[in-house]
Amino acid sequence: MPILNKDMTLCISLAGRPSNLGTRFHNFLYEELGLNFIYKAFTTTDIEAAIAGVRGLGIRGCSVSMPFKEAVIPLVDAIEPSAAAIESVNTIVNDDGTLTASNTDYEAVAELLVEHAVDPASSVLVRGSGGMAKAVVAAFRGAGFDDVTVLARNEQAGSALADKYGYRFTADDPAPGHAVIVNVTPLGMSGQDADALAFTPAHIAAARTVFDVVAFPAETPLIRAARDAGTPVITGADVIALQAARQFARYTGITPTRDQVERASAFSRA
Amino acid sequence: MPILNKDMTLCISLAGRPSNLGTRFHNFLYEELGLNFIYKAFTTTDIEAAIAGVRGLGIRGCSVSMPFKEAVIPLVDAIEPSAAAIESVNTIVNDDGTLTASNTDYEAVAELLVEHAVDPASSVLVRGSGGMAKAVVAAFRGAGFDDVTVLARNEQAGSALADKYGYRFTADDPAPGHAVIVNVTPLGMSGQDADALAFTPAHIAAARTVFDVVAFPAETPLIRAARDAGTPVITGADVIALQAARQFARYTGITPTRDQVERASAFSRA
Repeated sequence: MPILNKDMTLCISLAGRPSNLGTRFHNFLYEELGLNFIYKAFTTTDIEAAIAGVRGLGIRGCSVSMPFKEAVIPLVDAIEPSAAAIESVNTIVNDDGTLTASNTDYEAVAELLVEHAVDPASSVLVRGSGGMAKAVVAAFRGAGFDDVTVLARNEQAGSALADKYGYRFTADDPAPGHAVIVNVTPLGMSGQDADALAFTPAHIAAARTVFDVVAFPAETPLIRAARDAGTPVITGADVIALQAARQFARYTGITPTRDQVERASAFSRA
Repeated sequence: MPILNKDMTLCISLAGRPSNLGTRFHNFLYEELGLNFIYKAFTTTDIEAAIAGVRGLGIRGCSVSMPFKEAVIPLVDAIEPSAAAIESVNTIVNDDGTLTASNTDYEAVAELLVEHAVDPASSVLVRGSGGMAKAVVAAFRGAGFDDVTVLARNEQAGSALADKYGYRFTADDPAPGHAVIVNVTPLGMSGQDADALAFTPAHIAAARTVFDVVAFPAETPLIRAARDAGTPVITGADVIALQAARQFARYTGITPTRDQVERASAFSRA
């Protein structure tokens, strides 16, 4: 990497607890593609001042994570459908002072459903009702899925989410038999829930596609169990790499190749 | 230089027309000293939003150049005497959201007068009345010089500056004979005034110290003439390196050695 110069375009992220993923992913591709860009994660205690800074400093792109995904909505100038539909922003692009918000998590999930040829006629069970679950459920609706059940402990959030898209809600484990099972809870994530299996073995055995949004580790107990059963999987690592690639394309105007995305993703997780 | 990481501390500059000097100077020393910092120049059309961004993004240090040196005064929390005395800020340090302004141009000029053992009893002729002239004249006053004449085409600014520090003002070339002559105009600077000699040969011949604040080139016609005459010089390159070193120390807490400053300065100008 060359020493920095004044003309480098800065892209940033804003998160309550920044990880190193985005910083490594984007800078890897800048170097790979010879772009005069830099990327760095930030946190803030004043999201309004931080977004003012995006404008005032001409920061080109700003990735947005928890807990700012809704708070930035009144601070931007335009909202793309991907973010407006779910009232959740994870990407802001600054075009000469005009800030446009979008949600590449939604886009990445939608694209992965197509790429993995998941049949929209499938019955789907989505577990979770948090911010990312909104993006996932909306993506299923956008992809034409009609038979979706939202399973969540939080009855209020879960039923509101299901209702919004005309889907079913349940607070209790439904009988196995769904062709697609999707985990959008922290179960299986590094930390206290690392050993938790998000679905029962019976649910996993019945599924034809297993989708886990947990990104750390990429091999959650759920993904491992699915692989052991020979069931096709979509992982949180896939989602996070694809949504970052779409941010990268928005910020730089260059769409990285699949191979570049895979290498940047591997580098970012190393 | 390693690939960027999320924990790097960002320092920036704000200027109407950013140069690459600061970016190269500071990043050179970060690498030399193994500090997890990055530095990048910015411009802005909204200084208020830019300073909000310094707060909101936790940017550690902000160097301030024309035309923002006075405009930032109401935007900071505290002003050190170096900046308050001349109502001109070139440095902002962010301590957990508290912004403190100072002026390292003033400090650098004061330090160079001591380092070059310029006798405070000397008669001094300062040419210029702009923002940098304020720092220079104030530094002479701070160093105990009593016999200073301010020479400027702009009578209003020149006489106001001289009056403020109890010095003489003249709009016309005074007779030669000053022991110290100081150029704080663009005469001799790269561009349309590159060939201009800021003082007459007679003034140069009479001087025992020749001080040119023009930093590009370091070898102005004035400095060349003084060197040819065997007269000790202080150059704009000296000022800019020393003021940057003092910014560096404020931002990082580490005072670079003279050798490090010289190498960073040479690198920044290459």
